[in-house]
Amino acid sequence: MALNVTQKLIKDHLVSGEMTPGEEIGLKIDQTLTQDATGTMVMLELEAMGLDYAKTEVSAQYVDHNLIQEDSKNPDDHLFLESAAQRFGIYFSRPGNGVSHPVHMQRLAVPGKTLLGSDSHTCANGAMGMLAMGAGGIDVAMAIAGEPFYVKMPEVWGIYLEGELPKWVSAKDVILELLRRHDVKGGVGKIIEYHGPGLKNLSADDRHVIANMGAELGATGTVFPSDDEVKRYLKSQDREEDWTEILADDDAKYDLTETINLSELEPLIAKPSSPGNVVPVTEVAGEPIYQSYIGSSANPSYRDFAMAAEIVKGKQVAHGVSYDINPSSRQILTDLVKHGHMANLLPSGARLHQAGCNGCIGMGQAPATGKNSLRTTPRNFPGRSGTKEDSVFLCSPETAAASALFGKITDPRTLDMDYPDVKDPDQPTIDMTLLDKPLLPEEAKQVELQKGPNIASIPEMDELPDEMELPVLLKMGDNISTDEILAGGARVLPYRSNLPEISKFTFEIVDDSYYDRAMDIRDEGGHALVGGYNYGQGSSREHAALAPRFLGTRVVIVKDFARIHWQNLVNFGVLPLTFSTDEEADKLEQGDVLQFSGLRDAIQKGEEVTATVKGKNEEVKLRHTLSSRQVDMMLKGGLINWVRDRDKK
Amino acid sequence: MALNVTQKLIKDHLVSGEMTPGEEIGLKIDQTLTQDATGTMVMLELEAMGLDYAKTEVSAQYVDHNLIQEDSKNPDDHLFLESAAQRFGIYFSRPGNGVSHPVHMQRLAVPGKTLLGSDSHTCANGAMGMLAMGAGGIDVAMAIAGEPFYVKMPEVWGIYLEGELPKWVSAKDVILELLRRHDVKGGVGKIIEYHGPGLKNLSADDRHVIANMGAELGATGTVFPSDDEVKRYLKSQDREEDWTEILADDDAKYDLTETINLSELEPLIAKPSSPGNVVPVTEVAGEPIYQSYIGSSANPSYRDFAMAAEIVKGKQVAHGVSYDINPSSRQILTDLVKHGHMANLLPSGARLHQAGCNGCIGMGQAPATGKNSLRTTPRNFPGRSGTKEDSVFLCSPETAAASALFGKITDPRTLDMDYPDVKDPDQPTIDMTLLDKPLLPEEAKQVELQKGPNIASIPEMDELPDEMELPVLLKMGDNISTDEILAGGARVLPYRSNLPEISKFTFEIVDDSYYDRAMDIRDEGGHALVGGYNYGQGSSREHAALAPRFLGTRVVIVKDFARIHWQNLVNFGVLPLTFSTDEEADKLEQGDVLQFSGLRDAIQKGEEVTATVKGKNEEVKLRHTLSSRQVDMMLKGGLINWVRDRDKK
Repeated sequence: MALNVTQKLIKDHLVSGEMTPGEEIGLKIDQTLTQDATGTMVMLELEAMGLDYAKTEVSAQYVDHNLIQEDSKNPDDHLFLESAAQRFGIYFSRPGNGVSHPVHMQRLAVPGKTLLGSDSHTCANGAMGMLAMGAGGIDVAMAIAGEPFYVKMPEVWGIYLEGELPKWVSAKDVILELLRRHDVKGGVGKIIEYHGPGLKNLSADDRHVIANMGAELGATGTVFPSDDEVKRYLKSQDREEDWTEILADDDAKYDLTETINLSELEPLIAKPSSPGNVVPVTEVAGEPIYQSYIGSSANPSYRDFAMAAEIVKGKQVAHGVSYDINPSSRQILTDLVKHGHMANLLPSGARLHQAGCNGCIGMGQAPATGKNSLRTTPRNFPGRSGTKEDSVFLCSPETAAASALFGKITDPRTLDMDYPDVKDPDQPTIDMTLLDKPLLPEEAKQVELQKGPNIASIPEMDELPDEMELPVLLKMGDNISTDEILAGGARVLPYRSNLPEISKFTFEIVDDSYYDRAMDIRDEGGHALVGGYNYGQGSSREHAALAPRFLGTRVVIVKDFARIHWQNLVNFGVLPLTFSTDEEADKLEQGDVLQFSGLRDAIQKGEEVTATVKGKNEEVKLRHTLSSRQVDMMLKGGLINWVRDRDKK
Repeated sequence: MALNVTQKLIKDHLVSGEMTPGEEIGLKIDQTLTQDATGTMVMLELEAMGLDYAKTEVSAQYVDHNLIQEDSKNPDDHLFLESAAQRFGIYFSRPGNGVSHPVHMQRLAVPGKTLLGSDSHTCANGAMGMLAMGAGGIDVAMAIAGEPFYVKMPEVWGIYLEGELPKWVSAKDVILELLRRHDVKGGVGKIIEYHGPGLKNLSADDRHVIANMGAELGATGTVFPSDDEVKRYLKSQDREEDWTEILADDDAKYDLTETINLSELEPLIAKPSSPGNVVPVTEVAGEPIYQSYIGSSANPSYRDFAMAAEIVKGKQVAHGVSYDINPSSRQILTDLVKHGHMANLLPSGARLHQAGCNGCIGMGQAPATGKNSLRTTPRNFPGRSGTKEDSVFLCSPETAAASALFGKITDPRTLDMDYPDVKDPDQPTIDMTLLDKPLLPEEAKQVELQKGPNIASIPEMDELPDEMELPVLLKMGDNISTDEILAGGARVLPYRSNLPEISKFTFEIVDDSYYDRAMDIRDEGGHALVGGYNYGQGSSREHAALAPRFLGTRVVIVKDFARIHWQNLVNFGVLPLTFSTDEEADKLEQGDVLQFSGLRDAIQKGEEVTATVKGKNEEVKLRHTLSSRQVDMMLKGGLINWVRDRDKK
């Protein structure tokens, strides 16, 4: 049977299940990636599991989120992660080395392999012909421990690319076009696979941009073939030996098909406050801006910064614009310095920041109240920038740089200049200085974990009760992101290794009385949450499941879930339910009290669950989509209990 | 009469008083400098005074402290400062342009002028043959409004320099030598003037390093002559026309004299947690380090970073060392990029940060718990790094870079390499992109102040009561710094424009129950504070007087005061008293209640003030050193009330 690239990758790694869309499959994981904001919890989980040494081919722990170090919490976490990486046989990318996704692509990605990462943009390495997926931290911990990753077999969505991008239009506009067409849940349950003649006009770095923001479509992953361009890229990184060709068979089929003619694209922009709010730049051109921000894993490459430098070369940014340059990796920063681009950027008025995630995760560079910020980052969820009522637009480096020059949103095609001819350096810098290789097993055994005072253990979690009476503490609308459930940013991220402390920020953006109300009834059995479509979109942070669970969330009932958050809820024993119809959703109000009875039996027997609304003489029909493995896990109170029980036997 | 440079500068600007050490003199101020952490309050004060347009020759508002922007508070402050600078006819140096002191030296400093700055390191521009002094914000506000600056006529301390610095020994070691000899209060009441044949071997940038840390000696200022080297420097900055020669007369006298033979110096280091804890590097060589940090106004020049780059060129920093590079200005950063030094630094493993104060003021880059941090910054007061029990050493760039290579404190003379021959670029970059010139008066009038939600007015302050009963809420030891009174750092600094909020951090490092205890009795008349020698050393932040005053501090009784903090207390109506003898100090314990009676009369009549210790049948003999102008101000409750009363008349 003819296979597409995705099917080949899955087939090569299938350890359980059938390749039928919607069925749970188990996949062997070759590589893992963790970053600091999710990684401290992963390492605590590995410790709890008693892991001796990573069972993957490559596992890498990056420090890219919490770089500010305003007190000892972040640097203590860094030292903990370093010691844990040494202890468990994991690569360690030091603070300042750069963002996980581009660094991983440069130094460690291998075509044909699976990569599971506790960061939702892990999919970016799909650019390399990998099956790269974001997941919750504990899923990654399990993968490091050699367990398969369980996921529903996705549909494969073939995007046929033809034509060539016009001048001033770049890879970011390709993925923004897909978001314009399908919005933030268009990719749910799917892997997006790009193919067709247009591919030859997209560099590996371009593909990274496109693969990265597959996460914003809610896709399980994004897959590109491993073709001659990937070979060229690996050769430039002195890793040609890691290349193998992986192409779709000639007559491969896709579950869904779609075409993008690159030649017909124009500069696009996502308006506040969703990556799916995409319009042509022309539609918002002229809006004044306060900030133009270049960087993040969504536009991480040398080319992206060099383009931003060429556009402002010999000119100055408009008065009052903060032109923030946030290098994605130290390797790329070095090349930008060596090849003269930094010497063009700085005199234009640019502010150069440390290599890392920084502003993209709200770790600095927040905009002023009521001012527009233009960013090449992947997300503009409300408040993610750090400013509470922010106004963030997402666009290409070309659009951001052009707008910086004029102080207002500007279509780069209107610039009075030739399109810069930006070429990658023939021999890019290859820099392993801050990327430590794993210790050998015998050395690793000697390492002790260094736990600073801010690192707290994960509390015990009880089993799923059979009878529950749960007030609906919040009723929310559609597209609630994990940023709204539990913010990132400089205030919150330093507590990523301290569950009791970080829980205080839960749902703060949605309703700042939630924490107190939840704590009031936590010991009386907890509560339920109600939401709409695409609940839990955005980042993979498992804290967005762990913190509500810690505060007593036992059930989350929505119209549908974003994949990773759904999995995180299951892993931590919060029952994720969907309304059987949209009408059922209308029955529930905030403050209603839901009564569940015989729940353990119900979720084992089938998909249907019924709740009674106390005092309203009304029933709500709900369902779950847990596999039998997951039901078992849910009954035990989550994956940690499940693993512990299993290993006892 | 033959005059030294200091006397010439003072004589040229004297508007009141006699040039007799200890007497209050009034000085005409030509230039002012404010930074963002102190400047928001200065601008609010100018607004309260109803200023129309700056009356100085040059006033400049820098944004260099609060660069992190973790939410909207900092960027809102930046916009407020921008609007205020425009409104009042002030230069505005945008975020990312660099630290005030080096930028001011490069672009605005003029030999022969007076410079008053709301930053204690303002003295750095004494390198340019200026009388440059740090002061509280409201003193600077008064200067901007055309009022004289009142200060006690200092003694002039002539430091005769001879010889030439050996290889691997640099300007930082000169000022560390002076701190080794005289500790952190050795310069109180003095202006340090350097002269002698050794001067010709010190560049303007070297002199900046030495002048800057005059603040750490507690000196009123540091003065260098304006000689051919200053001419060369100004010429390199395309400002030769700003040069005038100012040399000491041949037979000029000094109140105190001392000699430093540069040839005899060796690499020095200040151990935790005081800049006065100076020992030879050899004495602590071998101590493991976690961090090596290059930057700040204490080592701001091209030469300092280039030296740090040359030392690590072609090598890699030791495993586990965070080698933090914090450029002091965008102009210097551009030159480091252009001339290849950044391309040497980055591959060594350096983390490059935004141009600004950053780690020096605890705005990021805090060390991990219990780990040693080596810094070229001017201060290592407890907790200033952001980490509560930190361990910070101060040293030269040579020592910091050498130590980074070995992961332990290392005497740079032990490096197996030739001493790098670092030369300034012939034509340094001159960059005004982010330094906005003042608006013309007619344009300035049109500007409205932009006040974000975090900007709060200064509360009303009442007159000094005649009878008071004040519990001693804290009894402290010697050398309490303004960092201990009210910390800087990323948690606290964003509230610099919001007095009620920032007050919550007062004395947190000394005793975290202070705030609550003060608030409990604030409306019952307030409290007293008791301390030892050199109380209020360190930064010029007036918030360290304003916040205690807001919490009810009416009287501070110590053995002696650091100059700027003493002045700040007076300005905000807190009565600064000293014990008549050290024995008197022993009489008081925390918790004692002091009774003052007929206080207004007493401070008008003379220097003596007596307090009764309630229930102890004991009296404490105290004194004040207020001028009659200051007594008047004190009776009215502070400078704001005093100005308002005066302008009513």
